[in-house]
Order: sequence, then structure tokens, then C-alpha cells
Amino acid sequence: MTVTAPAGFAAAGVPAGLKSTGAKDLALVVNQGPNFDSASVFTANRCKANPILWSQEVVKDGVVRAVVLNSGGANCYTGAEGFQTTHAVAEQVAGKLGIGAIDVIVCSTGLIGLSNPRQNLLDGVDAAHAALSEDGGAEAAEAIMTTDSVSKNVVVEGAGWSIGGMAKGAGMLAPQLATMLVVLTTDAVVPAADLDRALRAATRVSFDRLDSDGCMSTNDTVTVMASGASGITPSLDDFTQALTQACTDLAMQLLKDAEGADHEIAITVLNAATEDEAVEAARSVARSNLFKAAVFGNDPNWGRVLASLGTTQALFDPADLDVAMNGVWVCRKSTPAEDPAGVDLTGRDVTVTIDLKSGTERATVWTNDLTHAYVHENSAYSS
Amino acid sequence: MTVTAPAGFAAAGVPAGLKSTGAKDLALVVNQGPNFDSASVFTANRCKANPILWSQEVVKDGVVRAVVLNSGGANCYTGAEGFQTTHAVAEQVAGKLGIGAIDVIVCSTGLIGLSNPRQNLLDGVDAAHAALSEDGGAEAAEAIMTTDSVSKNVVVEGAGWSIGGMAKGAGMLAPQLATMLVVLTTDAVVPAADLDRALRAATRVSFDRLDSDGCMSTNDTVTVMASGASGITPSLDDFTQALTQACTDLAMQLLKDAEGADHEIAITVLNAATEDEAVEAARSVARSNLFKAAVFGNDPNWGRVLASLGTTQALFDPADLDVAMNGVWVCRKSTPAEDPAGVDLTGRDVTVTIDLKSGTERATVWTNDLTHAYVHENSAYSS
Repeated sequence: MTVTAPAGFAAAGVPAGLKSTGAKDLALVVNQGPNFDSASVFTANRCKANPILWSQEVVKDGVVRAVVLNSGGANCYTGAEGFQTTHAVAEQVAGKLGIGAIDVIVCSTGLIGLSNPRQNLLDGVDAAHAALSEDGGAEAAEAIMTTDSVSKNVVVEGAGWSIGGMAKGAGMLAPQLATMLVVLTTDAVVPAADLDRALRAATRVSFDRLDSDGCMSTNDTVTVMASGASGITPSLDDFTQALTQACTDLAMQLLKDAEGADHEIAITVLNAATEDEAVEAARSVARSNLFKAAVFGNDPNWGRVLASLGTTQALFDPADLDVAMNGVWVCRKSTPAEDPAGVDLTGRDVTVTIDLKSGTERATVWTNDLTHAYVHENSAYSS
Repeated sequence: MTVTAPAGFAAAGVPAGLKSTGAKDLALVVNQGPNFDSASVFTANRCKANPILWSQEVVKDGVVRAVVLNSGGANCYTGAEGFQTTHAVAEQVAGKLGIGAIDVIVCSTGLIGLSNPRQNLLDGVDAAHAALSEDGGAEAAEAIMTTDSVSKNVVVEGAGWSIGGMAKGAGMLAPQLATMLVVLTTDAVVPAADLDRALRAATRVSFDRLDSDGCMSTNDTVTVMASGASGITPSLDDFTQALTQACTDLAMQLLKDAEGADHEIAITVLNAATEDEAVEAARSVARSNLFKAAVFGNDPNWGRVLASLGTTQALFDPADLDVAMNGVWVCRKSTPAEDPAGVDLTGRDVTVTIDLKSGTERATVWTNDLTHAYVHENSAYSS
């Protein structure tokens, strides 16, 4: 059920002393080949962390042989010294594995603006290398947790090949192109160009549609490595479908573990003129603090849905919108319809369905409610 | 200190039975002339309430003789019947005053999607008309309160003329063009075209720069009426300056009374390439739930400021940003600088200063922190 499920991968997770609790905080995932194809997507945030600046160069040739990840510090806005730390970590991994540092992706997560202690990281790399195991995926997934309450892993089985994955992330969840830290592995034979196509198709409808709190991270990375160890070459369609399934599964695990959330909310926009407009309309509702607070209070406040839609440029007639919550059409033609008292919001899963009546496209964006626990956790995170 | 301070205006505030508490919920402000110049701005939300749809027609000829306002229901998404209610209220006011309904602005505020009881409104108009007084401004300001904890009034004195104003609003505060319900009065002689110019200049740097919770209302209206009763014609510059002062004063009153807030936060962007980009950059920080929750926790988390800036298109070098909180430059050249421990956030007023180093323009956006009380109030509003 982890990144080491597919053949050709070893992983480890160890404590390197970055977390004050002494918990595991450094992970290493190594592709043992025979192939070293890869693809990656990174945060669209213009303010990028040092590991992103490094890894963007690493991925350019489509070859990645290892990913080293740490929690306990994002190494973001730490200046030239921070970049040198990222570089030193990649070199340390490369030296241990007898490969080039330019084939090593580095990912970091934690507080922005804090320098990571370099020697701890280098010693942690040595320890992780010594602990590398074909059963090490679960420990790697534990080592990248920050405010996550559980580690996140997935396996999707193909015909003679498989995809494994791990993810971390519980806040600052509003990716564009990528989100949080996600490492995917496969033993299928997939050339780098096809991997790239499949990964962009998969993230577009999974991580990119997750908008827990509207805040885009500086460190988001999703990377996939293909070892080819199964010797099997699936069709690009089959592989893309499996990769999408793996990404969606991990995205839903992130959603369910979002900081302080009481509800998981799926906002589906139907009959939009374009898919982009469906996403824009759904995202506007996902970012309404008033709507999200209402869901926390089990209040089917559809007026706040319409008020959010009105801030978008999506094609629709403001006088002809339908809205359902948990299947009850509380608003038809922009006027009250079925009794909102019939909407039971006491469960965790909430659906909002919006009919724009302006085309045939649709999209779903997932978010959480706005709770006291969210405010508490995020008012105390760095102190 | 109210809308009846300038000569030529009468007002009243009465209970019409819309609020279950029996509190005042209907206000009437009447311009007694000799002039009836006016200007108005309305919400940019595409989903507009019925009173907006009506009032947009009223203001087209620059003549407004009365504004009738109710709390206890927004009359938004209530269909054709809701529009007829708005129309009937305007007709009732017109009949009482012996004027045309097309010179009567209607404003409503409260829950979206609830029909207002028409007869209560019509009876309330009769009662308000009977109670009209040149000292009635304070009662009118009380009658438009919803979740406001205090009524908001202002007077700015000119040379022989004055401006009075009242406002309501405590949530759904992220105007574009206008915000909340605001009625301004003046006894200066100001032709409608000049009033319009002055009002747009004043709201652009006051209400439009207030972004308490990122949520744009369906009912926002700012209207100004000029009676000319002082007989004095100020210069357009003097009048615009006084009107801007009145609008800024009311905006700050709204900010300080925002739902559940513990802090008022002024985010100033310096040295932007354009004023629009300064506003965009400042607004991105004002809308970051993570940053706002950090301020609630008295945590000077400047990393969340940079992460927000990175989501904008404003011109800047991500590696060369300076950020100060309460005057302490915690970040220089996008790296840690002065010790954040020196930032005291225990007071209500917080300043964030961001230097983009890309030009000479600047702007300030005002917001509040994200608190337990905000979540509580907005999870329970309609229930």
C-alpha cells in the first residue's frame, strides 16, 4: 500500500532531529531501475522554496533516480544559504547512491522562513540510506507528516504492474498545477514524455481541484518515477486512468485530514459553458468563508452560494440558477424551492450541486468547512 | 453626527416587525431640497438583490429625493414577488411624500433568499413618514443594523456646508465599487455629475479597500444626496476631499465592528508598478485565512505574507521582498531579518508593510483577523 509496492523501489523514513518531538522527519525514495523515467509538477506560486528551485532543474531531462524529503522546515525564504543546504542534501544522497546529484529531487515542508540545520539533514540522509528497504514505504510516508494526523498511502494495481504513492498535506491546500508533497512510483515501462502527459492529466482533475483553505503553498511537489521493473508497457490510456485513480485517492485522503475540518464538501457545477468556468464557479464557493462557516454550523445557506457565484465571470443568467445541497434543490430559478429544513448536514460528506444552464461542461472542486479547530490550529502553528 | 446634520434632510427609524426582536428595522431619509442631486454606486456582484435592480434604474437621471432602507431581510433571490415588494415600498414612500416612485432608492439587508413581509414594510413606511424629523438621523442609523454591535454615523464640516453619513455592515465585507448600505447627505450645492465624480473618487480609496472576509455582498449600496440647502457651492476638490474623509471614517467604523474580529489589520504595499497592482498584492494577504488566523494567535507569520504575494500577478522579484509587521522588518530580501519576537501583536491595530521595489505606487487594504468568534457568528447566522 506504499511507494515500495511497485517493483524496483526502496525507501526509508528516519528521525533526523528536525522535529522537536524526535519523530521521523527525513524520507528517501530510490528508484532502482532498470528505467529512470520521471515527471513532476510544482506549485504555481511565484514565491517558491529552495527545494523547488533546485528540483525544477533536476526534472528537466526526465531522469530522476531518488527523492529525498524532509518535514520540520520548508527551507523557503532562507536565502542563498538555504539553497546551498538543498544542494548539499542532494549531493549527500548522490554520493551514497553513486549517482549524480542532478538526478535527485529534494522536497521540504514545514514552517516558512526557518533555516534547516544542514548537518542534521546530511546525517539523516546517511541514516536513511542505511535503512533503505523494499518494505520502507510506510516509514517514508510517516517521515513527511507535519500537521497530518495520519500518513497517506495508495496502491493501484494494473495488469502485471502497479502504481504506489504517498502524500502529506493538511493545510495551505489550494494547489494550481500541483499540491503538497506527493511521490508516486510505478514499475510499468513508461517513457518520460508519456509520464508527463499522464501526470498532468491526473493532477488536473485531482490535486488541482482540491481547495481546502484557498492558500497556495510555496513547496508543492508531485513527482512520479517509473522503474520499468515489471517489464510491461501499458497503454497510455490505461496508465493515465490508473494514475488518476491514485492521485484522486491521495487527494481525498488529504481532504479528509485537512486541519480542523468537520465536513468534506464536494462542489459540482453542471452545464457550464466551459470546464474552466465550471472550475472557477465551484472554486468561488469553495473559497467563501461565509459559506464554509455555515456548513460548519449545519446551515444549508444557499444564499451564500449564489453570492459567491456572482463574483465570477462564468457564463450564467443570475436570475436562473439552481442549487442543491445533499440532493435537495433548495433553489430553483434563483428563488427558494424545496425546504432547506430537509437538508441534513450532520454527516461529514456534503454535496453542493449548481446548475448554470449555460452549456454541457462540469467540474467538481473539493473543500472543507471553516471551523473553530481550523482557526485554533492555524493561530498556533509556529508558536 | 448623522445624516440629518446637513440642512435640508429629515429622517426616521421605526420598528416594522421584520426583526423578531421588535427592534427598529425600517429607515427613511428624505431630501427636502431645494436641490435633489444624487450619485450612487452599487455592488459589483453579478447576483444582485431586488432593491439593487430597482435602485439602479432610479439613479440614472441623477435625481433622488428619498432613500428607504430595511434590515431583517435582503430581498435577494426572492423572484418576481420580491421585486414587486421593492416596487410597492418605493410607491408607498412616493405616495406619502407626493413625489414619483422613480426618485426613491430602496435598500434591504439581512438574510438572502427570504421574502420580506410586504404589509409590514408598507405599514413601516407610513410610521416612518409620520416620525420624520430633522433630528431623526440617529434612529435611522439604528434601524439598518443587522449583526452590527453599534450604529455608524459621521459628520464632516466644510466651510458653511457639511456632509453627514450613516452605514451598516459587519460581514460579507469585500466590496468592489461599493459596500454595505451607506447613505450620505450634504447641504452643499453639488450638481449630480460632480457628485458622481466625487463619490467614485471617495469610495475607490475607502470602501473598495476594505476586505474583511473576502465575501462580496449582493446588496451593497452607497448613495449621496445633495440638498443645496446651505446655498454654498464648494470646489469639487474640497468637496471630494470631505466626502473621502466621511467615507473613510465610516469604513473604519465598519472595520472595527466586523464580526468576531480581534484585530484591525492595515496592509500597505509600497513601491508597486501600478496602484492596481498594489491593491491586488495587499488584497491577496487580506484574503489569506492562514495569515489572518496567525494574527488572531498574535503570531507574526511573515512566511504566509510571502506565500500570498506569490499568488498574484503584481510585478516584483520573489527573491527581493521586504516585509514589516508593526514597524519591525521581519523579512528583507525575502530572507529572515529582524527578530519576529520583537513584533507585539497584542493590541487591536496591526500594520503590515510590503515593499515590492518595482515602482512608486502604493495602496492600503484593511482587513480583520480570522477568529473563533467569526466562525461562531457565521455558522449560526440563519439558524
